[in-house]
Amino acid sequence: MTGLACASMAELIEVPRGLHGVAVTATTVGDVLGDEGYFHYRGRSAVELARTSTFEEVAAIVLDDSGAPAIGDGTLPASLAPLLDRFDLRTGLSALAEAIGTRALVDLGPEQRRVDAVQLISALPTLVAALHHGRVTPPRADLGHVANYLWMLTGVDPTPEAVRALETYLVLTIDHGFNASTFAARVIASTGTDLGGCLVGALAALSGPRHGASMAKVLDMLDGIAEADRAEVWMRDEIAARRRLMGFGHSVYRAPDPRCTLLSEVLAALSPERHALVAHVEQTGLRVLAGRRLVANVDLYAPVVLEACGVPRALFTATFAVGRVVGWCAHALEQCAEAKVIRPAAYYVGPPP
Amino acid sequence: MTGLACASMAELIEVPRGLHGVAVTATTVGDVLGDEGYFHYRGRSAVELARTSTFEEVAAIVLDDSGAPAIGDGTLPASLAPLLDRFDLRTGLSALAEAIGTRALVDLGPEQRRVDAVQLISALPTLVAALHHGRVTPPRADLGHVANYLWMLTGVDPTPEAVRALETYLVLTIDHGFNASTFAARVIASTGTDLGGCLVGALAALSGPRHGASMAKVLDMLDGIAEADRAEVWMRDEIAARRRLMGFGHSVYRAPDPRCTLLSEVLAALSPERHALVAHVEQTGLRVLAGRRLVANVDLYAPVVLEACGVPRALFTATFAVGRVVGWCAHALEQCAEAKVIRPAAYYVGPPP
Repeated sequence: MTGLACASMAELIEVPRGLHGVAVTATTVGDVLGDEGYFHYRGRSAVELARTSTFEEVAAIVLDDSGAPAIGDGTLPASLAPLLDRFDLRTGLSALAEAIGTRALVDLGPEQRRVDAVQLISALPTLVAALHHGRVTPPRADLGHVANYLWMLTGVDPTPEAVRALETYLVLTIDHGFNASTFAARVIASTGTDLGGCLVGALAALSGPRHGASMAKVLDMLDGIAEADRAEVWMRDEIAARRRLMGFGHSVYRAPDPRCTLLSEVLAALSPERHALVAHVEQTGLRVLAGRRLVANVDLYAPVVLEACGVPRALFTATFAVGRVVGWCAHALEQCAEAKVIRPAAYYVGPPP
Repeated sequence: MTGLACASMAELIEVPRGLHGVAVTATTVGDVLGDEGYFHYRGRSAVELARTSTFEEVAAIVLDDSGAPAIGDGTLPASLAPLLDRFDLRTGLSALAEAIGTRALVDLGPEQRRVDAVQLISALPTLVAALHHGRVTPPRADLGHVANYLWMLTGVDPTPEAVRALETYLVLTIDHGFNASTFAARVIASTGTDLGGCLVGALAALSGPRHGASMAKVLDMLDGIAEADRAEVWMRDEIAARRRLMGFGHSVYRAPDPRCTLLSEVLAALSPERHALVAHVEQTGLRVLAGRRLVANVDLYAPVVLEACGVPRALFTATFAVGRVVGWCAHALEQCAEAKVIRPAAYYVGPPP
C-alpha cells in the first residue's frame, strides 16, 4: 500500500520542524517582536507595565482586559489541606482544579471558565507555598498578591524592595508568545476542556528540561564560576566540553532580550555585588559565544533576582508558573472560544503499510 | 509600532486553522489514510491486528516495536491507596506518575522514559478501577490485561466473549493520528519532560467535550430514540433544533471509518438486539444527514460495545484512555527523541502596540 501512503502524504502541508514561524492561530493576548527586542501585552509594552504597574493590574489586562479583576483572595479549598504533605506541584494543581469543581467532558461555558481562571491564578501562590511547607499558610488581607506569596514562602514580612523586584519579574514573564507550555495549554483548550486541564498540561510542558530548567542551571553556572575573573576560563571549558552555556540565546530574539535588560537593572538595585558578577558573566558569555548565540536571555538574570528576593531555589520554576499562569489562562480562554479542535497531521515514515 | 507588528507578521507562515492537514513532524507510529478508510500501526493494518492479536501484542508493536513487552503486572504503588477515595482520573494519573518517580526538570533519558511508559500503561486499568471503587483491587496473575480490567471493574470473572469484544475495541483505538490529545502529549514531550506529564496533558485534552464526550452522547441519543422506528423522527427533530447528531462525521475519514465497521461486527455477535437498533440508527443517520457528514464514526458503535461488555457508562472515556495510553506513550517517546521544542507563532490581531 505504499502508493496510498504517498498519495496521502502529497496532500500534507509542509512546515518547519517545531512549527517555528508557523502562525497557528490569531491572538489578541500579546506579541513578541524578536528583531526589535520588544514584546507587549494587548498592545502595551510589557517592560513599561513591569516598571509601573502591580501584578494585579497587569493580570487583569492580560487575562481579558475586561476591567474585571483577575486576582481573588487566594484561599485554598479546605479539602486540599490533608493532601499537601505528599504532592508535587502538578498533582497539587490537578487536585486544586478538582476541588474548585472544574470538570471533565462538560462544556463549562466562557463565564464559568473565567471564574475558574481567577480562582486558579489566585490560589497558585498559596498552593506553591503550602506544598513547600506541607501545610497551608492562608494569605493575609493586608498584603498584595506578590507580597503574600513571599510572606507565605518565608514566614517573614518581605521588604518593599524584595516585593517590587519579584513583582517586576512576575509581570515581565506573565506572557511571551507561543512557547511550548502556552501552546500545550491552547491545544488542550481547543477541545473545550476545563481551565484546570489546560494548566496541568502547561505545567507539564514547563517541567521539561528543555523548557523550564535553565534557571537552576544558570545558578549552577554562577556557583561554578564563583568569581568574576574565573568566568572566561570556566565558560571556555564548558564550550570545549560541548556543554551548553545557559542563559544565552533565544528562539525569537535577535535584538537584546528586553526582560534581561530590565532584570539587570532590578538586580543592580537589589544586590549590586551579585549584579556585578552576572553582568561580567554576560559580557564574557557574549564574547566567548561571539557568532553563535548573540543575546543573553531572561534566564541569566531571573534566577539571581529570585534568589535575592528570598525565593528558595527549588521553587524557581513554580514561581515562574505563579506569573505565567495568567498568560496560560488568557490563551486557554481565547482558544476555547475558537470552537475548532487543533488536530494536525504528520508524515508517516515507518515501515510501508 | 504598527509598522513593526506588520513586518513581524509578514514573516509568518500561514496554515489552515486547527493545523488541519499540516504535517508537524515525521512519525513511525502509524498513519490514517482517510480517503481509503484504512489505518495502520507501524505498517500493520489496525483492523487485522484487532481481529487477531492480544492487547499485549499490539501494545508492544505500537510502543516501539522493539520486541520488549509494553505491559507489566499492573500493580499500583502502595502510596496511592489512601488517596483513592478523593481523586478524579487526572489527579490520580498525576499522583501515579509521581509515585513511580517521574520527575520534573530532569532529563530522564530514553531508557527510563520507556520503563515509565510501561509502568503507566500497565497500571492505568488498575487505577481506573480503584478510583471507581475507592479502593484497590490488585490485578490477578492468571488474567490478561483486558480480562483483568473487566474483572477489577465488575468483581466477577468476565466471559471470554466480553473480554474479546473489549480487547478488539481497545486494540482498535490504541492510536489514530495526530488528534488533539496525542498532539498535546507530543507538544509537552518536545520539552523533554517525563512521561507522566505527557499523559496528564493528553488526558486533559481528552476530557474536552469536543474530543472525548461523544460516546456518552451517543448513548443518550440511543436512549432518546429507544425504538428503531422512532429513529428518523428523533433525528430530524435534533437537526431541526440545530443540535449535532453524535456518532457521525470525521475530520479525516471520507470512506467508512474502519473502526466503525469492525465494531459493528463485534456488537452483532455480542448483542444482536442492540446491534439491530444501532445499525438502524446508522442507516437512518446517513440518510437524514445525506450531503453533510457522510460516514458513521467509531463513537457510534463503541459505547454500545462497552456497555455490552459491562463497562459502566461513567468510565467510557477512562476506558478509551486505557487503550489510547499506549499511543500517547509511543508518540511521547518518539517526540522526546527529537530534541526540538514545538514552539509555533501566531498572528497578533489585538490593539496596535
